[in-house]
Amino acid sequence: MLRRYLPILTWLPHYNRRLGGADLLAGLIVTIMVIPQSLAYAVLAGLPAVVGLYASLLPALAYVVLGTSRTLAVGPVAIVALMTGAALSGVATPGTPEYLQAALILSLLSGLMLLLMGLLRMGFVANFLSHPVIAGFLAASGLLIAASQIGHLLGVELTARELLPRLVELVRGLPDMHLPTLAIGAGSLLFLLLLRQYGRSALRGLGLSRPLADLLTRSGPVFAVVVTTLVTWQLELDAIGVAVIGDIPQGLPPLSIPGFDAPLWQALLVPALLISVVGFVESVSMGQMLAARRRERISPNQELVGLGGANLAAAFTAGMPVSGGLTRTVINYDAGAQTPLAGMFAAIGIGAVTLFLTPALAYLPIATLAATITVSILTLIDIPLIRQTWRYSRSDFFAMAVTILLTLLEGVETGIISGVAISIGLFLYRTSRPHSALVGRIPGTEHFRNVERHETETVSHVALLRIDESLYFANARYLEDTVYDLVATRPELEHVVLICSAVNLIDASALESLDAINARLKDSRVTLHLAEVKGPVMDRLKCSDFLDDMTGRVFLSTFAAWRELSRPSQ
Amino acid sequence: MLRRYLPILTWLPHYNRRLGGADLLAGLIVTIMVIPQSLAYAVLAGLPAVVGLYASLLPALAYVVLGTSRTLAVGPVAIVALMTGAALSGVATPGTPEYLQAALILSLLSGLMLLLMGLLRMGFVANFLSHPVIAGFLAASGLLIAASQIGHLLGVELTARELLPRLVELVRGLPDMHLPTLAIGAGSLLFLLLLRQYGRSALRGLGLSRPLADLLTRSGPVFAVVVTTLVTWQLELDAIGVAVIGDIPQGLPPLSIPGFDAPLWQALLVPALLISVVGFVESVSMGQMLAARRRERISPNQELVGLGGANLAAAFTAGMPVSGGLTRTVINYDAGAQTPLAGMFAAIGIGAVTLFLTPALAYLPIATLAATITVSILTLIDIPLIRQTWRYSRSDFFAMAVTILLTLLEGVETGIISGVAISIGLFLYRTSRPHSALVGRIPGTEHFRNVERHETETVSHVALLRIDESLYFANARYLEDTVYDLVATRPELEHVVLICSAVNLIDASALESLDAINARLKDSRVTLHLAEVKGPVMDRLKCSDFLDDMTGRVFLSTFAAWRELSRPSQ
Repeated sequence: MLRRYLPILTWLPHYNRRLGGADLLAGLIVTIMVIPQSLAYAVLAGLPAVVGLYASLLPALAYVVLGTSRTLAVGPVAIVALMTGAALSGVATPGTPEYLQAALILSLLSGLMLLLMGLLRMGFVANFLSHPVIAGFLAASGLLIAASQIGHLLGVELTARELLPRLVELVRGLPDMHLPTLAIGAGSLLFLLLLRQYGRSALRGLGLSRPLADLLTRSGPVFAVVVTTLVTWQLELDAIGVAVIGDIPQGLPPLSIPGFDAPLWQALLVPALLISVVGFVESVSMGQMLAARRRERISPNQELVGLGGANLAAAFTAGMPVSGGLTRTVINYDAGAQTPLAGMFAAIGIGAVTLFLTPALAYLPIATLAATITVSILTLIDIPLIRQTWRYSRSDFFAMAVTILLTLLEGVETGIISGVAISIGLFLYRTSRPHSALVGRIPGTEHFRNVERHETETVSHVALLRIDESLYFANARYLEDTVYDLVATRPELEHVVLICSAVNLIDASALESLDAINARLKDSRVTLHLAEVKGPVMDRLKCSDFLDDMTGRVFLSTFAAWRELSRPSQ
Repeated sequence: MLRRYLPILTWLPHYNRRLGGADLLAGLIVTIMVIPQSLAYAVLAGLPAVVGLYASLLPALAYVVLGTSRTLAVGPVAIVALMTGAALSGVATPGTPEYLQAALILSLLSGLMLLLMGLLRMGFVANFLSHPVIAGFLAASGLLIAASQIGHLLGVELTARELLPRLVELVRGLPDMHLPTLAIGAGSLLFLLLLRQYGRSALRGLGLSRPLADLLTRSGPVFAVVVTTLVTWQLELDAIGVAVIGDIPQGLPPLSIPGFDAPLWQALLVPALLISVVGFVESVSMGQMLAARRRERISPNQELVGLGGANLAAAFTAGMPVSGGLTRTVINYDAGAQTPLAGMFAAIGIGAVTLFLTPALAYLPIATLAATITVSILTLIDIPLIRQTWRYSRSDFFAMAVTILLTLLEGVETGIISGVAISIGLFLYRTSRPHSALVGRIPGTEHFRNVERHETETVSHVALLRIDESLYFANARYLEDTVYDLVATRPELEHVVLICSAVNLIDASALESLDAINARLKDSRVTLHLAEVKGPVMDRLKCSDFLDDMTGRVFLSTFAAWRELSRPSQ
């Protein structure tokens, strides 16, 4: 029991020096790699850069104790930061104490929700975000993030929050570009893009080993940060208008208490729920993927608890909403992390940076961070997946396209909610007009197939109708229509057999429809039979009067029904 | 084409004298029967009684031209009147011109929506109201209507609109009951209840024929109205405080133009939608039931057009939202109506009453109307259906119970919306954890059954997994879990066969999960196969790369997979 809620107890007792060495190295690498990122995502959310560091400390430690993934690294992540910024700017002005306070409340609410969902074992809610909706949402969010950074990259001040006005403002502002900022921003961007595209193979070409080449390629952002910071410092570029991070308070995060303010809490409820669910889905998908590679399992419900604990920790240590981050997790995994202790070592490392090294970050140009963000979000836009969805399913593609469009034009919250609503609606619509097929016997066998697709044997006084869907309220009437049409067009019919091999559920509405069909067929002197009813469905039918009222029988197999009914009557 | 949208063209050309005679008689009977009802429902909606008459004229004629049911009678109905009252009292005060105006706008919006849904062939939306939700909604609405009438019956003035405050007010007001009103109200109620319970058999006992006994039993409300009106007139009971209908303007309905007022229209949009859908569902279910009895068909999409036309007519002739009424339709059907012309004759009859006989209604006591309404809504509360739903399905019952409770406590709109949301939610939840079963061969046959329910033959290196649900986003991850658990617990596995006989759909999310499963199994040296994939599903899969990547094969039948794979390898 204790182990279920404190997964650390399952692995810590077996910890040894070999694991410790691997984890320590991974922790060190992660420390260096995620600092630019952590700062950048805090800025993306409209918060002071240091909040990103704070949110990488205690939240990560909370996850170490509570989480089930061995390699997931928790901290500020791009999508959650984007959603945080959108939520907060609805209730406060960036730069004010109210904005910081709202960030704490958002973390607190998100933490409580995740924890509650975890304790209620509600991990399944994540399933309602379909893959196309997630893919669409990520792609659109990536574009929104890029749009939010482009001003920083070009040195143009942008104030509008919506996409279209922002683009208009950008075009208008282009003549006023700040050239030194542009040099740093575009330069970093170009460097990172080139490194990403060609770095690995170029470095391998120089004779480096594969792991080293990978590591150096991944260090691009660190390199860009160090170089541009040094250049800015030496040339005093901040004095001529290049925006920099500026003074970051030194020291560990302060204890913070999210204040209670009923209207504010209420306003942040829905955003907190969306952030929780989206963060959880991202985090758990990645955790599952990596766990699968090492033949480990993670528990989605306990992951909710772990992320909940991490967000609560963020709320009380001047942080921001956190989740399992794609980039930091992949770095951690590739650096050879064996247990969550790697996350602890990274947190200690970032803590040390926060304590001693923040002055070194004062001259870090915002444009460099913008370049870092822009490159890292490119992974969010998965064009092949979008193309593949188009080829495979138009309705899935439709859900994806609507999610993209509404996220871009109406914002992240409307986008994701509409995506979920549309995918549920489409599923209901599809199941509300179920496929059904008249089947006939494949001569000489006990198999029955669609008469329109196969050469089959049929008799005119028996209709074998296979229903390819569970019967429930949304399609109950449709079933009635199908059967009535059948009877209306075939006056010689004596028996209708509903083949229920694909019927996994008959709800109360469908039961009433079956009752109605039975009564109506009885009036027309047609007998209604069922075949291949599944165990659970049959158990349920036995609780009703339907089987007593039904004019015909329940056959175990279609063949049994055929053998019995296909003989000419009298 | 013209015939599709003007169904009158299909039957009017074949009209003859025999049909005319039957329709004329039915029209006459309906005229007499529905007058008390029409007045009563207008009062229930908080409108002047005459509005109920107006709404029985032109709207009924519009339906005659546009509707597809031969016997449906359109006019004010109880549930729609209740919902109309709830909607209007949210935006205006009963008795004011604004309230009348809002009623017109509500009719107009409802008419436009119905028409639009009809033209877009959206009749299927009605399917999303599951039977248990409708039954729960009707029962709760019946109780609300009864609660709204009890003040009129007892002669106690009630002002609260919510159920609980109303009941409190009622108890407090009991000592101030107006005894003459109570005598009329309770007397009429008792008379109608007794007649309903024993009238038919008593009259048959007196030697009357069955149709005549039925007719007389149904005339109870007319009889009560005539007697209590005469008594009130003769004894001048209105002078001592018995509330009466009062002067009704004589003459045909005036032309009315619903004014445009953006905020008011917006406020009435959701109520209009709910009224449209609920009215349509009620109307079309009844129409289908009666049509089925006479081997006729109705077209749900054209019914939307018919009801839409009726509501538009109501909007421009000082009416109120209308629908196909249960009582008036049953009267019409039982009176022998053959074609919609019966409805026309009834409308003409009511028109004549409106022109010449309204002075006779001035002394009609409100208490009598309240008794009429109360008795007629008793049919809405279907206790056996509620009990049967409990027995058959706890989750359907849950949806019903929530609908009843929320309708009673939070009002009709919250009630119906919650009911729909809950039944959709429950369906999604059920399908998100699909039933799946390991199957084995029934020795000596080609049949395969659940190993836990039947004596079957299995081999340890092949797992035959039957999935009893369509694969879509909500259960894709669940499928992954099921397969991974299977592989984790059976190290000797070499082949996993997914039997897809009950899989009617594989959406893009589930396709990705299948891809993931295939890759993961490949890593574990387990081959993934499919069996019994349905035609439409297979067509879809061929549009993806999955079949190329899959490590195993697609077998036509489970038996073929068994024959091939169950042989010991090497």
